[in-house]
Amino acid sequence: MIGDHEHHHIENDEAYKGLNVNSGVEQPDSFDESSIQRFLKNKRKNQLSVEEYVAGILEGNRTILSKAVTLVESSKPEHQKIAQQIILKCLPYSGKSIRIGITGVPGVGKSTFIESTGKYITSLGHKLAVLAIDPSSERSKGSILGDKTRMEELSIDPNAYIRPSPSAGSLGGVARKTRETIILCEAAGFDVIFIETVGVGQSETVVHSMVDFFLLLMLSGAGDELQGIKRGIMEMADAITINKADGDNVDRAEMARVQYMSALQLFPPTDSGWKPKVLTCSAYKKIGIDKIWKTINDYLSHVNQNGYFQFKRSEQSKFWMYETINDQLKSNFYQNPKIKEILGNFEGQVLNEELSSFVAAKELLETYYQSQKVKE
Amino acid sequence: MIGDHEHHHIENDEAYKGLNVNSGVEQPDSFDESSIQRFLKNKRKNQLSVEEYVAGILEGNRTILSKAVTLVESSKPEHQKIAQQIILKCLPYSGKSIRIGITGVPGVGKSTFIESTGKYITSLGHKLAVLAIDPSSERSKGSILGDKTRMEELSIDPNAYIRPSPSAGSLGGVARKTRETIILCEAAGFDVIFIETVGVGQSETVVHSMVDFFLLLMLSGAGDELQGIKRGIMEMADAITINKADGDNVDRAEMARVQYMSALQLFPPTDSGWKPKVLTCSAYKKIGIDKIWKTINDYLSHVNQNGYFQFKRSEQSKFWMYETINDQLKSNFYQNPKIKEILGNFEGQVLNEELSSFVAAKELLETYYQSQKVKE
Repeated sequence: MIGDHEHHHIENDEAYKGLNVNSGVEQPDSFDESSIQRFLKNKRKNQLSVEEYVAGILEGNRTILSKAVTLVESSKPEHQKIAQQIILKCLPYSGKSIRIGITGVPGVGKSTFIESTGKYITSLGHKLAVLAIDPSSERSKGSILGDKTRMEELSIDPNAYIRPSPSAGSLGGVARKTRETIILCEAAGFDVIFIETVGVGQSETVVHSMVDFFLLLMLSGAGDELQGIKRGIMEMADAITINKADGDNVDRAEMARVQYMSALQLFPPTDSGWKPKVLTCSAYKKIGIDKIWKTINDYLSHVNQNGYFQFKRSEQSKFWMYETINDQLKSNFYQNPKIKEILGNFEGQVLNEELSSFVAAKELLETYYQSQKVKE
Repeated sequence: MIGDHEHHHIENDEAYKGLNVNSGVEQPDSFDESSIQRFLKNKRKNQLSVEEYVAGILEGNRTILSKAVTLVESSKPEHQKIAQQIILKCLPYSGKSIRIGITGVPGVGKSTFIESTGKYITSLGHKLAVLAIDPSSERSKGSILGDKTRMEELSIDPNAYIRPSPSAGSLGGVARKTRETIILCEAAGFDVIFIETVGVGQSETVVHSMVDFFLLLMLSGAGDELQGIKRGIMEMADAITINKADGDNVDRAEMARVQYMSALQLFPPTDSGWKPKVLTCSAYKKIGIDKIWKTINDYLSHVNQNGYFQFKRSEQSKFWMYETINDQLKSNFYQNPKIKEILGNFEGQVLNEELSSFVAAKELLETYYQSQKVKE
């Protein structure tokens, strides 16, 4: 149960001492009563057809959308088969959203930020889907998303759809599921997609490769522990936002803004030709949210004008095709029983300098291809 | 011929207009006359035994070292077989050097920097090997290394060994060859290894994963074109050095130093616990070279003390084992004739949104594994 407060939560680890993050919230079901009835009737027959899934998604039925996402997230082959058919039929209706990556370390106030920005965006008439990538949440059996108190409004907003991170699998697997979920959400009419990630791992690179705009949340004057995002992430950001710019903190936040601004000027130019912006906001007091949304729209005008938006989307589609292939090739290798048996020994020999990295690799590969021959 | 000035050189492309980079220099052969005679005698028999190679390398015979590196770089299976045996026997004698990555865009003065720093290092009694990674130099049939005039001294220094970048192959392939060449150079007694790269591609990440210290060369007040290193590289640097800090440029370089210093302070801490330094130098006037060498040694003290040096070396060995495996798995897939035939069509369908990235990947993988079955 996602709402169960008993669950261990990674952000409550010793490493993040001083912080406290609540467990995720459960999504309310559809508001469309007739859809629910239809859904339940079908459920009694124990399944929906692919066509029913697609029709449900296209009419924005959230219960059916959720059920389709569950299929996407399932590792059962029969579920995957249906999921892929649904995705294929949804593809022509996808792509018409703004995909925004949001990252920042625990404590930076992501939940509050998503709540405030999300409410602002839906108040403008947009439909917002909030997804997350956090493979490490496997242990917490749920999402990093959601603080029951702070996301209270967004979680009952009929124009918002919050879906926790898939709860298991490798980063590659979670990424695939999230990317497929984006397609379904877009087909269901959500025109703004948030993808949240904790800025401490490798998930950011993955998120960066599936969004149009990458936003980094920071704090002013926080200690190294709190600012401890991974090196390299700052250079991915299309905008940095200093959160908690309220009360006593306004001046410090402004000072931090100026500092980051001048630091960013020393960075090499971006591929998009966009000059990353630095902003301040108070998600809690709802100050500066409109400027962030304006910045995102400025960015979109910029990249639509110079063609970078479509270019990047195409590159991302290609990237994900190749990434999936490469991921599967590796997975087949490392899951091979013979390889699993001997890999540790080879690694040990490399570490003890009894074997070169390359000879070890070569012998492992020979074993692998040999075992495949025998198998077939 | 590497010394041939007629060759097309990537840095002389339109993109780098205004710059002019000469072709590489040829290495003088061994200074050890008796080794040459022995070598030539054996050459008449058309080959050295593995033992002769290893003995020659261990006594620092540069001609034999060069010939071994040529085997490492060869794609012929019979050469590779001997090369791997040589490497294996050299492994116990390797590892006892400082490996330094040096990057910076064309025009920053890398050749002069390597010449000045190299001469300074050999004057302290060290033996220096200079390697390069530049897969794009395939077109130029040689290395980015070496400006005949500026590297004049280092190229005839008996304590320096300059080896151009392997002239063909993928980044992965070039990286493997360079890493194996490091092992041979170390076994031959070179205790400082420079690995040069042009800071415009993906080579930096690769170099970063095979060196102990990563140095980024920059200029003060240069236009965006000249500063155009790839985003993310700055955050890899253990030190940034502003070159050409001489004459009128001293103040500007100092100003740039202060700016970069304060920018670096906003970056997250490094894994090594080292705070990256910013220095100025004039490679041409040989000013500030001693401070750079001191900084590298400070870094080494730091990481030797906290254990990071050995930790990183071990991580790198493991990394290269896995990297080689992953590279080979991919290569086998993409070189598969059936895949080569249909890949473009699938990519096209993904770009036209007729197929999802994941379905395309899945179908390609099925074709691949099927074709392997048939083959065996």
